[in-house]
Amino acid sequence: MAEDSTVTKPRVVGDSGRLLHGGDLDGARAVFPAAPEPWVDLSTGINPWPYPLPPVPPQAWARLPGRAEEEALRAAAAACYGAPSAELVAAASGSQALIQLLPRLLPAGRVAVMEPTYAEHARCWALAGHEVRGVEGKGILIPDAPDVLVVVNPNNPDGRLLPPERLLELAQAQAARGGWLVVDEAFADMEPEQSVARFAGRPGLVVLRSFGKFFGLAGLRLGIALAPAGLAASLRDAVGPWAVSGPGLSIATAAFGDGDWIAGTRGMLDDAMARLRRLLSGAGLTVVGGTALFCLVEDRRVPGLYRALGEAGILVRRFERRPDWLRFGLPGPEEAWQRLSVALDSRGTWEQGGDKVGAVQPSKKSAP
Amino acid sequence: MAEDSTVTKPRVVGDSGRLLHGGDLDGARAVFPAAPEPWVDLSTGINPWPYPLPPVPPQAWARLPGRAEEEALRAAAAACYGAPSAELVAAASGSQALIQLLPRLLPAGRVAVMEPTYAEHARCWALAGHEVRGVEGKGILIPDAPDVLVVVNPNNPDGRLLPPERLLELAQAQAARGGWLVVDEAFADMEPEQSVARFAGRPGLVVLRSFGKFFGLAGLRLGIALAPAGLAASLRDAVGPWAVSGPGLSIATAAFGDGDWIAGTRGMLDDAMARLRRLLSGAGLTVVGGTALFCLVEDRRVPGLYRALGEAGILVRRFERRPDWLRFGLPGPEEAWQRLSVALDSRGTWEQGGDKVGAVQPSKKSAP
Repeated sequence: MAEDSTVTKPRVVGDSGRLLHGGDLDGARAVFPAAPEPWVDLSTGINPWPYPLPPVPPQAWARLPGRAEEEALRAAAAACYGAPSAELVAAASGSQALIQLLPRLLPAGRVAVMEPTYAEHARCWALAGHEVRGVEGKGILIPDAPDVLVVVNPNNPDGRLLPPERLLELAQAQAARGGWLVVDEAFADMEPEQSVARFAGRPGLVVLRSFGKFFGLAGLRLGIALAPAGLAASLRDAVGPWAVSGPGLSIATAAFGDGDWIAGTRGMLDDAMARLRRLLSGAGLTVVGGTALFCLVEDRRVPGLYRALGEAGILVRRFERRPDWLRFGLPGPEEAWQRLSVALDSRGTWEQGGDKVGAVQPSKKSAP
Repeated sequence: MAEDSTVTKPRVVGDSGRLLHGGDLDGARAVFPAAPEPWVDLSTGINPWPYPLPPVPPQAWARLPGRAEEEALRAAAAACYGAPSAELVAAASGSQALIQLLPRLLPAGRVAVMEPTYAEHARCWALAGHEVRGVEGKGILIPDAPDVLVVVNPNNPDGRLLPPERLLELAQAQAARGGWLVVDEAFADMEPEQSVARFAGRPGLVVLRSFGKFFGLAGLRLGIALAPAGLAASLRDAVGPWAVSGPGLSIATAAFGDGDWIAGTRGMLDDAMARLRRLLSGAGLTVVGGTALFCLVEDRRVPGLYRALGEAGILVRRFERRPDWLRFGLPGPEEAWQRLSVALDSRGTWEQGGDKVGAVQPSKKSAP
């Protein structure tokens, strides 16, 4: 264990429960029944300007997806992500499905998850019988020989980024003892030069990619794993045939190959995130991290701000163990930007609101 | 082991391979390059008259499916299948996904699969580390205490049907020793009175249902498991959130609730299957079993018939271990019926073709 790392108990939910995720508008409506409709949902990190849906042939709904269509999807994903070959690609109905499955394919062992991060990793490794611990550190992380090390990169929610060369070192060290480095690149589409997808196939390296976030089609359900050929084949076997819907294959294959849309969208998302950060800074809030699809505010007035936004029909993402954190996704329509702007401007309300619930005192056990 | 049962080694394909399934038109085109287009695909058991697609809101593609939508789907599935409650329901992206997952949730043990049947059951239990054997029998089956017994009912490809009371006895016997009976009801929609879905929740009983076959939307990818609440919750946990696409949830919830369409389709499929059986009998072929979505021909001239149909651009399902079997799905458009009729009428061709490849001599190891 490196000196700059500390060990925490990851937050794991048992069989009976489900982690709290973004996007729970029904829950928000219950808490803020007087909020104006429609809600502005900024609680996820999904591109609000989706890839334009191409026409879906009715046959894609009616018949089982063919092997040729699945192979075309894998080839298009490999090309889009810069991976050496389609042989290294496994596709599933969402990257969540891969996060669920991978722990069931590897023998029970010790797993370190770099925290704080997307909580489903710890939950799924524990659910499959592994011994899971959270590790924290400032970029350079030498955990004491876990069988599997999980890093979300760039990280959710704080945007922490390990450089590719560091990840490759970690993968090599893991491979040397027969272990694995899992790099969840769910938010790596905006900075392809930071991705290790082009090194897919190296021993010990598993890369997870999410189709829905960058392409703005989270309901389509497509996730991609990039791994050495043997593990990729095992993943494909374990996922089984026809895991991705026919329409999903058709739409995603087109999207992966649309270089113009991808380049244009990167620029548009960068601009939009710059605007969002200006808006938040202008309201006196400190943005401590993020990606082009979300940014993280750290402020002791967050509880009041969360409530003021909720009462204005704006849902953002908060964190149970970090009551001073609030994550903002990008507003899409201009009206959503205006509503956010107005809600932030009414600072008297939420500064008061914050006082009402008391100052937040993060406990020592919280993430840094 | 009952006296009327025999044990066979189930056909299992390892990591590198995939079982041969129906619907492989690309493969058929490679074997019959001169066949007329478009192909008539009778190689699957999918209703050729799909549920009419309701409009899909763009938001169903764009955002993550909400918990309320998943709960609505589970409630609609429970109501449609006659299961006591949505708490007993788990949904995944295809019943194949559940066939892949279930073996990974139960502790390694001895599994008996009633054969001959859909080969993915044996493959998936073996892939997950269980000891798998095939058992055959004429309806009354008393295997010697497997931990898990798998029965496809009605069976694919021969339509063999165990009555509900027999299945309930088997489930009870399995439960008494802490084991499970898995009833794959992928083709049970046409005869709901034969289904044990209404007994879901009984100890030891797991029922699998396929949305895509009866509703004619196999590309949508939705499978349902019905199980006691504890196992259903474990399945939901292992599948994870958002496994079914947003559009899939929306369409399937509507379809499950459309009693008029369901009743009308049952009648239409029965009529169509009666027509198909008449057509095959008229050509001198013996139909030995099936359901309303497929029927099974047994004939020594099958290899020649398969080739004659292929050359006419008609794909049917053959079986590696039973070269005298051929499974026919329902033609949809009238033109497909006519092409099948013409191909069957040219009996000289396929009877000769059969002679050319030699008479089929099923080995003693073949299924009965």
